[in-house]
Amino acid sequence: MKPAIHRQIAANYPFLLTLQTRFSDMDTLEHLNNVAIAGLYEEARVRFHREVLEGAMPRAPDMRTVVASLSISYLHEGFYPDQLACGTGIVSIGRSSYVVGQAFFQNGQCIGVCDTVLAQRKEGAAALVTPELRAGYEKLLIGGAVSSQ
Amino acid sequence: MKPAIHRQIAANYPFLLTLQTRFSDMDTLEHLNNVAIAGLYEEARVRFHREVLEGAMPRAPDMRTVVASLSISYLHEGFYPDQLACGTGIVSIGRSSYVVGQAFFQNGQCIGVCDTVLAQRKEGAAALVTPELRAGYEKLLIGGAVSSQ
Amino acid sequence: MKPAIHRQIAANYPFLLTLQTRFSDMDTLEHLNNVAIAGLYEEARVRFHREVLEGAMPRAPDMRTVVASLSISYLHEGFYPDQLACGTGIVSIGRSSYVVGQAFFQNGQCIGVCDTVLAQRKEGAAALVTPELRAGYEKLLIGGAVSSQ
Amino acid sequence: MKPAIHRQIAANYPFLLTLQTRFSDMDTLEHLNNVAIAGLYEEARVRFHREVLEGAMPRAPDMRTVVASLSISYLHEGFYPDQLACGTGIVSIGRSSYVVGQAFFQNGQCIGVCDTVLAQRKEGAAALVTPELRAGYEKLLIGGAVSSQ
Repeated sequence: MKPAIHRQIAANYPFLLTLQTRFSDMDTLEHLNNVAIAGLYEEARVRFHREVLEGAMPRAPDMRTVVASLSISYLHEGFYPDQLACGTGIVSIGRSSYVVGQAFFQNGQCIGVCDTVLAQRKEGAAALVTPELRAGYEKLLIGGAVSSQ
Repeated sequence: MKPAIHRQIAANYPFLLTLQTRFSDMDTLEHLNNVAIAGLYEEARVRFHREVLEGAMPRAPDMRTVVASLSISYLHEGFYPDQLACGTGIVSIGRSSYVVGQAFFQNGQCIGVCDTVLAQRKEGAAALVTPELRAGYEKLLIGGAVSSQ
Repeated sequence: MKPAIHRQIAANYPFLLTLQTRFSDMDTLEHLNNVAIAGLYEEARVRFHREVLEGAMPRAPDMRTVVASLSISYLHEGFYPDQLACGTGIVSIGRSSYVVGQAFFQNGQCIGVCDTVLAQRKEGAAALVTPELRAGYEKLLIGGAVSSQ
Repeated sequence: MKPAIHRQIAANYPFLLTLQTRFSDMDTLEHLNNVAIAGLYEEARVRFHREVLEGAMPRAPDMRTVVASLSISYLHEGFYPDQLACGTGIVSIGRSSYVVGQAFFQNGQCIGVCDTVLAQRKEGAAALVTPELRAGYEKLLIGGAVSSQ
């Protein structure tokens, strides 16, 4: 299923980052490999957490965030050595999880979209999204959705 | 959303493969990294195509198969240096695409499930799934679905 | 400089291991990439330490082994999906370091040789190779050298 | 063996490049993994060839350059998410090969040095370094050697 239009527009993402591509991101077809692209989404997601999310809302030191699921749409091929612009933000907030949404842009075109469900865990069990965390996540929601509440 | 139960049973997959894990598949948390796991699904998917699918139904030499989307559920942590057993098969068949379904098992437990939508392309346009290809894909469907026909 | 002949013979290595190659080990030239090969040497080196060296001679828990230098000769191209046979053993033993030697074989041919200098560190300083460690390392020396003492 | 002092000074290299590090470059010890560092040297080497070397001296289209050997000294640990500055240049020129020298700098410190022997091949045989190529390579020699001619 094609991702929503508002997810393919860089300006709707609260956190923008430029990533270098590497020769090793290419596979035998001489384009950016789909797993390498998954690795680049991870890189932007890690930077979002380090540079924005964790600073804004310090977590309990024993709270861990684990990737529960991952979903990527590949819309166009990506190429080396061109850089990637990556938009990252929050899609939705659950009881003990939240969804990070991302999009990659290369040479002015959206080449793909990624959704990652991150589950909060503490001492081996689900850790609730506290009101403080929810308030922090809400400030980082991806904009532009027609029917967002 | 939790994957269906029949997708978490190795015996339902027509193609089974054992993959070595590598030290480099681990991240700083000392478990198999989620992107490394995506790479291992790719490896099993490539072997499925080389060893089963392409032998059974030779494609037009100019037909290319591209990853249109990817969806992974991470159910349990995976560990090094234990091997992974991987089940691979066909989930469904579309007009010019098909879905490959996979599951990873480690130490007797299903640790995750992956669905990949593969689009058939020829000369830059969608290439229809011919009746011959459809017949071949149908022989490789994943079993055990309650409402399968 | 060409590696010595005895280093290109699998039977001279005390530890032999078979490694799967992966689609992602190939680069755009459709052979095993030289950095991917460095990663496969690392994998065999880690297994050598886990399965042979550390079992035979338990180290002080606070002793750390770090890669001080690495040297690889690429003799022939390697290919996917063929497996690699890897020989690993000890080349020489220093005061606070030792050299691990390795070779890769594919389809009956030696495709390369690797030497890694591993430095023993403890509390931020060089940790001497004790007589017990030396005796253990000596049992794992690579054989076949004409002028070995 | 410790690399020469002039190889640990960024200003001696004719080509300087800044590379981003990635979360996936770290291993379980939470520093930049030695194979990941080998991959980053490859990245800088590829960019040196694309951006400097090949532009300055166009090669015969059927000439191929292959990595014959690789040697890396790890002087200090490298860390994520800090960037790496990389210096690259020519160390020496042979009959049908040349040596590319590199160094990585992080937070003002040289953390390692790499030498790569690149062999020129054409139709499966060694391809001589022509006078034109030699003149081009000589313009990209690493500076600062005490006994350089």
